[in-house]
Amino acid sequence: MRVAIVGASGAVGQELLSILAERNFPTTELRLYASPRSAGRRVEFAGAEHAIMALPEDGDLGADIVFSSAGGSVSKAHAWAWASHGAVVVDNTSAWRMDDRVPLVVPEVNAHAIARHQGVIANPNCSTIIALMALAPLHRAFGLKRATVATYQAVSGAGASGITELREQTAAVLGGASAPSGEPADGPPAPRKFRHPIAFNLFSHDSDVGEDGYNGEERKLLLESRKILEAPHLAVSATCVRVPVFRAHSEAIHAEFERPVSEAEARAVLEGAPGVRVVDDRANNTFPMPLAASGKDDTLVGRLRADSSLPGGLALFVAGDQIRKGAALNAVQIAEALLPD
Amino acid sequence: MRVAIVGASGAVGQELLSILAERNFPTTELRLYASPRSAGRRVEFAGAEHAIMALPEDGDLGADIVFSSAGGSVSKAHAWAWASHGAVVVDNTSAWRMDDRVPLVVPEVNAHAIARHQGVIANPNCSTIIALMALAPLHRAFGLKRATVATYQAVSGAGASGITELREQTAAVLGGASAPSGEPADGPPAPRKFRHPIAFNLFSHDSDVGEDGYNGEERKLLLESRKILEAPHLAVSATCVRVPVFRAHSEAIHAEFERPVSEAEARAVLEGAPGVRVVDDRANNTFPMPLAASGKDDTLVGRLRADSSLPGGLALFVAGDQIRKGAALNAVQIAEALLPD
Repeated sequence: MRVAIVGASGAVGQELLSILAERNFPTTELRLYASPRSAGRRVEFAGAEHAIMALPEDGDLGADIVFSSAGGSVSKAHAWAWASHGAVVVDNTSAWRMDDRVPLVVPEVNAHAIARHQGVIANPNCSTIIALMALAPLHRAFGLKRATVATYQAVSGAGASGITELREQTAAVLGGASAPSGEPADGPPAPRKFRHPIAFNLFSHDSDVGEDGYNGEERKLLLESRKILEAPHLAVSATCVRVPVFRAHSEAIHAEFERPVSEAEARAVLEGAPGVRVVDDRANNTFPMPLAASGKDDTLVGRLRADSSLPGGLALFVAGDQIRKGAALNAVQIAEALLPD
Repeated sequence: MRVAIVGASGAVGQELLSILAERNFPTTELRLYASPRSAGRRVEFAGAEHAIMALPEDGDLGADIVFSSAGGSVSKAHAWAWASHGAVVVDNTSAWRMDDRVPLVVPEVNAHAIARHQGVIANPNCSTIIALMALAPLHRAFGLKRATVATYQAVSGAGASGITELREQTAAVLGGASAPSGEPADGPPAPRKFRHPIAFNLFSHDSDVGEDGYNGEERKLLLESRKILEAPHLAVSATCVRVPVFRAHSEAIHAEFERPVSEAEARAVLEGAPGVRVVDDRANNTFPMPLAASGKDDTLVGRLRADSSLPGGLALFVAGDQIRKGAALNAVQIAEALLPD
């Protein structure tokens, strides 16, 4: 397959390159695209050097598969043009996720939807993917009715600049720290990428807040979950929060099902679920953590317990690598499903 | 009033001293106690030096008010003995909270319960106090039935050593950091206070997990809320999580009430609630944050919105200083209620 990556210099683009290599994705040709600012930079892949190019004006990326992760506006403007030149576009942005022509796919959950594609396939939002890795198998077994979700989202979700900001701001705070609040005498460093300080702090997710009080990230969790699970009446309420963690998202979930679910039933389902690793060691107080999920393919699931506030309900906690399963790995898995047998 | 502080060298003990000074608590005499290890250290209060003493064997602390924050085992062993010498003990530990003889008090919520005391009054757990600052006024107005809570808890809840561990471990990770996961080449520093790394990580709360899968902190949120609100059938399910934040706890809450609640009604109630500051600026994406709550008396409440997953339900987000309102300030407020008019 001739592969193109749009947004090759970003955090997800870099991860796509390592995952393609790691999984020996059959790549006959590799073309890397990014903004004119990054064009000319050279990147190694499978022993060869590749120059990052600016996007061609005619929309012909010379590829069978295009991974698009340069931001929603780029995908919005170009995805169908790339597809018209014969590529299948696996879009990591939010541009086309809710479009009826576009399957929205987590391969472990709804690989069947890939067959319906018309040239563009969307990769869901990272927090949706990580929640559904646990909720989808439970949904199939017990019929998910309602989920409330509180997220603990890594800065990598805001791209490489989010990672840099957490690192540099934390170093600045520690350098001048005297008060136990972690604030140096001259106040915390001015945020650049984020509106609020992220070092030793957390804040409501940095997406726009709508009239109903939910932000964009929370709306995605509701709407994308409904589309992926083909459950148009599924009720989801999320509170999405950015935390000072580098690259894995965690989520505390309360779930209600059509039929009462016991902890043992839920555990059995999750232990058999692909891409899920149950981490639930009560004696050693060891459960899913972002540091343990970082760099891993599996979504970690634990804190499994009967909901003490709702008979038949379930509480759980998940953690998954936001750049891998939440983005690059899921996209490569979609591309693998497109390979001829 | 003759005041004694047991655990004067700890994070809460230090905060008690500053809050007593700040609020001009009428202190005729001050006695500071701590473990024999800290005895002899000198501490300044209101312009005078005070030596920290070891606890006297006879239980007579020479005080009218005893603030006890040296840990549950110390309060368990001595609280009633101190009281038998004429002191009223305001206990910051979990030792006596669920004892029928002991009022469990958040002054803004149930100051009336103080009158029933028999010598010991308990200060609730920090995450309970912070949740109830928002939930109690809503409960009075609409009748709270069920709440699910996901916490984002600061390391100060584990005492001064938790604060030190976050600071030192973060510095160590940054010093050697190369991977975007924040792990230095030789792995993260070994945790001491906590079982798991806290720098750029988070983990399920470090209290013991019971057979029902809930940990001690989560059980407190359920049982203490019932006692304080005098609502024995209240349903609460919490997921308590430790995050790399120094001193304020945050909580994402979904609440269900006897009667449907609109966002506007909830907002009106919270804007009139003592000790609460509504921070809910959607246009500027500014909501409660631990850094904004640190060092403040008020509990910040925001992200107020109708629960998209439950008609008539409410979602909200709170942040409060764990050492102040979550511990020392609440204790001083209880003591203030004991002062003669």
